[in-house]
Amino acid sequence: MAVTLTLDEVRDLATRCLMAAGADAANAAAVAGTVTMAERDGCASHGLFRVPGYCASLTSGKIVGDAKPSVELLAPGALRVDNRRGLAPHAIAVVMPELVAAARGQGVAAAAITNSHHFAALWPEVEMLAAAGLVGLAMTVGKSAMAPAGGTKPLYSTNPMAFAWPRPDGPPLVFDQASSAMARGEIMIAQRDGHALPDGVGIDVDGNPTTDPAAILKGAQLAFGGYKGSAIAVMVELLACALIGQPFSFEATAADNNDGGPVTSGEFILAIDPARFGDADGYQAHGEKLFAEILSQEGTRLPSDRRFANRARDPHPGTEIPESLMEKLQALS
Amino acid sequence: MAVTLTLDEVRDLATRCLMAAGADAANAAAVAGTVTMAERDGCASHGLFRVPGYCASLTSGKIVGDAKPSVELLAPGALRVDNRRGLAPHAIAVVMPELVAAARGQGVAAAAITNSHHFAALWPEVEMLAAAGLVGLAMTVGKSAMAPAGGTKPLYSTNPMAFAWPRPDGPPLVFDQASSAMARGEIMIAQRDGHALPDGVGIDVDGNPTTDPAAILKGAQLAFGGYKGSAIAVMVELLACALIGQPFSFEATAADNNDGGPVTSGEFILAIDPARFGDADGYQAHGEKLFAEILSQEGTRLPSDRRFANRARDPHPGTEIPESLMEKLQALS
Repeated sequence: MAVTLTLDEVRDLATRCLMAAGADAANAAAVAGTVTMAERDGCASHGLFRVPGYCASLTSGKIVGDAKPSVELLAPGALRVDNRRGLAPHAIAVVMPELVAAARGQGVAAAAITNSHHFAALWPEVEMLAAAGLVGLAMTVGKSAMAPAGGTKPLYSTNPMAFAWPRPDGPPLVFDQASSAMARGEIMIAQRDGHALPDGVGIDVDGNPTTDPAAILKGAQLAFGGYKGSAIAVMVELLACALIGQPFSFEATAADNNDGGPVTSGEFILAIDPARFGDADGYQAHGEKLFAEILSQEGTRLPSDRRFANRARDPHPGTEIPESLMEKLQALS
Repeated sequence: MAVTLTLDEVRDLATRCLMAAGADAANAAAVAGTVTMAERDGCASHGLFRVPGYCASLTSGKIVGDAKPSVELLAPGALRVDNRRGLAPHAIAVVMPELVAAARGQGVAAAAITNSHHFAALWPEVEMLAAAGLVGLAMTVGKSAMAPAGGTKPLYSTNPMAFAWPRPDGPPLVFDQASSAMARGEIMIAQRDGHALPDGVGIDVDGNPTTDPAAILKGAQLAFGGYKGSAIAVMVELLACALIGQPFSFEATAADNNDGGPVTSGEFILAIDPARFGDADGYQAHGEKLFAEILSQEGTRLPSDRRFANRARDPHPGTEIPESLMEKLQALS
């Protein structure tokens, strides 16, 4: 049984749930915006599905619903947002104009988002940078889920990294990928549906390779591409945590109240202005040559193209959610 | 048959070969420095083994041996080096003090190295940044060798990316990894020794998976971790090429004279000053907590620790090279 909602209905429902749980209008609008963008792009796992988790953490008091993020310029190319335990989308919305201005002025700039809760995809923030004509790179952490290369116990979260490159027409080139071989949500769905997983996704509690999703969820996920993906995860921990004085995945996990929502953690966002790197008139057309060359090979696609195809549906069909989720959301609103 | 050389002899021999091929003292010293560091660290594939390739490109005129790189400040956080078709190590040495100063002043800064030839590892430059207390990230491209995800023909080079994080005692945390599942040199060695390769390393000219190194060298290498590693390769192409007005791997390959040395291409180096991101007193000790946590799990190691163990040998045993290579180098010197 499923319920179909328009995107306006998605936004309205998310906003009502978040405000009922204690978010103020600014925080609710920012989060409802990312939820709606996810449903628009066909990313159900970051859409309304996340709202009960947000609400649980607002209700428990872990997330402060009326947090007013403050932005500080630590250096000409270094911004810090103290999000005062608020929701990441609001902090991102607040810092974005300043980050764009800093990158345009300096050539490259970075924003450190601290004391924050990230429970969304990372592509919204790098797409905002690309919409301003900038290259974006973003990283964050969450709950420990993934073993370090060679190890057996969860230490890193799935440590996502997102990148965007502006394109002259239409949406940017974007990837947003976990450092793990598989998203945790996909493993949960395989468990629910009783499917085995491919080799390399995870290990059981004793560190033995397994294709059983339940055993992996109790054990540990593995990085994509072995030790190389694990090295990317280390970089994410260092930039999104140690660099900006925020807890590592394992520290955030230990401090969490396990209310079902996101841990308190940081985010690192880098912005680069291609107009300041010496090929201001050429870089966009040049980038297109690479994309044309990729697509000239049969079987290829550009990252995020399925998501952009979902976005481009006209008229947009809205989204279909399980009736059980709809009931949960109606109770929360 | 092998010949053992001290590190001083390595440096001297490399310098003489490079100068005999037309490098001036500054260029020869910079390249001989990276060759010697590679041999010191037990990285034979980036050591004296590379010198005949450097010399071939100096002799053919592709590389300009007495190039004088010029540095331009394009924005407060954006430096560009025109290396005038010279060798990358010299350009890196020239720009490094300015990049360090820019990162300390701005919080984050980047150097674009253009019209250059990179035939070395990337860890020397990110280690230089870490020695100055900065976080380093470097990317470059070379000859087309790797198919895009889903494709069948070489498009990207092996597109390496290196990262360094400064540590309070001893060498930094460093990784320097190709975007390909396996280094091209390793595939060549498997071909020479008649060994089959694991699945996932490459495909034959028809795009079929194969474990035959010769078939992969004629066909295409594959990215590490499938489409996620391929996305990293796209990022490297965009930052090390399009952003800074330099040729993509496939463009550099088409323009190359195939003299056995490196293509003419760019490099992107990002430097971040952790002292400017709000945890100046804490970030180093904090980073160490992550490394201790990784190493507390049996079976783990930190990236580059074998290389640093090789470096730390005391007294250093020097290096052993094949007699055939020694004869080639003696003829070149």
